[in-house]
Amino acid sequence: MIGAEILIKTAVNAGIEVCFTNPGTTEMPLVCAFDSIPGIRPYLGLFEGCCTGAADGYGRMTDKPAMTLLHLGPGLGNGIANLHNARRGGTPVLNVIGEHATWHRAANAPLTMDIAALADPVSGWQRTCSTTETISQDTADAIAAASEGQVVSLIVPSDIQWSECADPKIHQPKFSNASIDKDSIIQAAEMLHTEQKSALILGGRALRKEGLMAAARIKARTGCDLLSERAPARIERGTGIPPTEVIPYFPRQALELLSGYQVIVLVGTGEPVTFFGWQGYPSRLLNDTQHICHIKSNNKSLPQALMDLADALDAPGKITAPDAGSSKIEIPEIPTGKLTANNAGIILAALQPEHAIIVNESITSGGAYLPLAVSAPPHTMMALPGGAIGYGMPCAVGAAIACPQRPVINFQADGSAMYTLQALWMQARESLDVTTLICSNRSYNILKIEFARAEIETPGPYAQSLTDLGNPAIDWVQISNGMGVPGIAVDSCETLTRELKRALKEEGPHLIEMVF
Amino acid sequence: MIGAEILIKTAVNAGIEVCFTNPGTTEMPLVCAFDSIPGIRPYLGLFEGCCTGAADGYGRMTDKPAMTLLHLGPGLGNGIANLHNARRGGTPVLNVIGEHATWHRAANAPLTMDIAALADPVSGWQRTCSTTETISQDTADAIAAASEGQVVSLIVPSDIQWSECADPKIHQPKFSNASIDKDSIIQAAEMLHTEQKSALILGGRALRKEGLMAAARIKARTGCDLLSERAPARIERGTGIPPTEVIPYFPRQALELLSGYQVIVLVGTGEPVTFFGWQGYPSRLLNDTQHICHIKSNNKSLPQALMDLADALDAPGKITAPDAGSSKIEIPEIPTGKLTANNAGIILAALQPEHAIIVNESITSGGAYLPLAVSAPPHTMMALPGGAIGYGMPCAVGAAIACPQRPVINFQADGSAMYTLQALWMQARESLDVTTLICSNRSYNILKIEFARAEIETPGPYAQSLTDLGNPAIDWVQISNGMGVPGIAVDSCETLTRELKRALKEEGPHLIEMVF
Repeated sequence: MIGAEILIKTAVNAGIEVCFTNPGTTEMPLVCAFDSIPGIRPYLGLFEGCCTGAADGYGRMTDKPAMTLLHLGPGLGNGIANLHNARRGGTPVLNVIGEHATWHRAANAPLTMDIAALADPVSGWQRTCSTTETISQDTADAIAAASEGQVVSLIVPSDIQWSECADPKIHQPKFSNASIDKDSIIQAAEMLHTEQKSALILGGRALRKEGLMAAARIKARTGCDLLSERAPARIERGTGIPPTEVIPYFPRQALELLSGYQVIVLVGTGEPVTFFGWQGYPSRLLNDTQHICHIKSNNKSLPQALMDLADALDAPGKITAPDAGSSKIEIPEIPTGKLTANNAGIILAALQPEHAIIVNESITSGGAYLPLAVSAPPHTMMALPGGAIGYGMPCAVGAAIACPQRPVINFQADGSAMYTLQALWMQARESLDVTTLICSNRSYNILKIEFARAEIETPGPYAQSLTDLGNPAIDWVQISNGMGVPGIAVDSCETLTRELKRALKEEGPHLIEMVF
Repeated sequence: MIGAEILIKTAVNAGIEVCFTNPGTTEMPLVCAFDSIPGIRPYLGLFEGCCTGAADGYGRMTDKPAMTLLHLGPGLGNGIANLHNARRGGTPVLNVIGEHATWHRAANAPLTMDIAALADPVSGWQRTCSTTETISQDTADAIAAASEGQVVSLIVPSDIQWSECADPKIHQPKFSNASIDKDSIIQAAEMLHTEQKSALILGGRALRKEGLMAAARIKARTGCDLLSERAPARIERGTGIPPTEVIPYFPRQALELLSGYQVIVLVGTGEPVTFFGWQGYPSRLLNDTQHICHIKSNNKSLPQALMDLADALDAPGKITAPDAGSSKIEIPEIPTGKLTANNAGIILAALQPEHAIIVNESITSGGAYLPLAVSAPPHTMMALPGGAIGYGMPCAVGAAIACPQRPVINFQADGSAMYTLQALWMQARESLDVTTLICSNRSYNILKIEFARAEIETPGPYAQSLTDLGNPAIDWVQISNGMGVPGIAVDSCETLTRELKRALKEEGPHLIEMVF
């Protein structure tokens, strides 16, 4: 067996099933090993940012790592932004990065780069394989580390890939067990036994249904509010699932909400901080007068940690969601007339089918949708935990490959969509059931809001031009058709309603450009 | 004045004229400073890889840095691959990267990343601004370092941008002088006084017209051959300009060529090495039996160094190109019938106008074109010195902005084009005179060649699928139209000839998908 085959066999044995890749010459032995050692399905992406974004989406839905196979430093570089998002969201991702042959590195050939240095800012774990004899152990260690909810990077020189190893031992990853700190549960239970206003702030896998149901028991017992981190990698929402209030993006609103609590219990998230350092606002959204407790648990044990906390509080047993204080927001009638971002949000909330996966990168267009969707049928929503735009379209690819039976709807800002639009081609190639709703406001609207916040009433012409995507207007229908995804543009509520229904009914990918 | 204005004023005073950017909230003071301190024209790119690629193209044509303005670590990450190409080509680039406010870094907000660590593998110089008082010196130092032919990265926290500094001093960069090591000139002259077969290997700015004319004098005096590095950032070619033989990509051919020389003089390039570490071949293309001399000069002095060497050899004076041994290749008649990559190369060489800038990312489709173009009218050609694909379309943007009077032709492989296709929108927005010729062979052909080299006659189905861009076929006409660049597809020599003539005659950008 050659090193590449040993790596793939170790990964197959450990349960890795998919690889998102754009390989080159230094990865050829691994490319061939997909055929000689069956078990991993490779998916071609036409840009590495789409590969890493797809791996993020896959990992969010399966809680196990997808593999990526990237070509040297530049291939990794193209994937950095979406790896940052995965890292911030605690998604397991196994990067395998081809490197020059060990004996070729000193030649400083054109593609030579310090790959380990480049991988470091986005990797919770990384290693460079040094021998074919140890490649199985390296791979098993990488998968174990990734499974903790980390991005890991395994750099594999091409001679290590192609070299033979007689009778190799295939290692198994050592997966960690559940880990919940009982003292922190007891402390939280004591703190929540209070007349003071209290809240749980939930993040990570605490936002899965079992976690939210347990949180609802705690709320029923103590009267605490349920908040969630601002942009979770994955949250279960909809009827029958206890809703959470999302911590707002802008600092004034976030401080207003959070300063009302005397007691805060953090579950699966750190202390909330502002997204940017804004003048006149602190970074920290909590303050020293508040009693703060952090439940200590690894990510996968968070739902159990919440159940333990509910039990420690002697909270009532199984709770149905209405008892948990559903927000009682009703989705309005489907509107008619001119399409706006708000109307689009209403229509999406009204039409999204049960068990949909909503990949939400709507940025400034998503305001109306977010609170309404708690009244939609049960679904999974993904947001942007790392803030690096361009995650939506490839994340939808990965989610659709992870969950082929579930419809995926990508509610997608246009500026962010342009970052990784090559993902549409993957959707077409794999006939994925993804409906992309492009919010075509033809601007970087968030920057316009920042001008307004800074009381710049009329930005100068250059500043204005840098927020403007309208010159020329991007024709998403042609772009989508050009990559093999049937596209259509709509500018009325009626046509959006008709086309969204049609897209959800038909199999395969669709793109609807919503012109606001 | 605030820090952002001081930075921009320093850059304007130092001669910086353009900025390619996709800014965000942490760069807002700099965005506003483009208006308050006039002198730098900002260009919006819809993906940072297009901004850094445009800066590379601009720097190759002007020998001075364009500025980029990038949003935190993810913005820089998206630009890494084309910065790698710029670094490898010795292109001056001034990256300005917005960072969280200094007091906000510790909060570890979602977009926080170790930007300096990320910048390091692609930067010859970098610094993080620490006060508004020192920002002008930082900027001047960055521009001086960039002007040496380096990528530099200046990280600017947002509070440093927005803070006031009364009566700031605006610093000027200290540009270095010409630097030529005379001993190395004398040594080379002695070595070239020989009966042995000798060659100059030229790289960097030695490939400008003055450098090549001086090299032709040396050739006329000594009989040496003129070779060029494999993929120069910029080379002057065409009638009246002494031609060079390009060192081949694959190791057997490169070794065959280079082993024929007993004396080698390196001018503006290091010792040639193989592109990858291939089994059975050494990294090094020269050997210990050869006499090797390295002319020591900074990049901008290379043409003068060659003139000095010619003078030291008492070489004849001004030479006309035919005396320099023009390769005597004639461009064939324009072919007819089915379009192939070879025919496309002939048609391009036959039709390219005088003073065209040819951005060549044709990869495997460019074989016929390269030797023919020495007989085309004088022109500039750019290649891919760093090997990170996806440079062509944005590099064409930067070249067209640098040289608005010159037609730019981007001879572009389809797989590579998909990496940074957002550059088409920049071409439309700025009405740039760029003609993009897409080589639509719908495959990563280089990988197929690697399979053949490895004697893998029938790659397995997964390996085959990873080289295939044909399922679905990308419709470049729709994609191009969707971004505002008029597109047309051709599959015959006649239609390519007609459409290329039309595109070159009409102003503004055009895309021609050449379906092979």
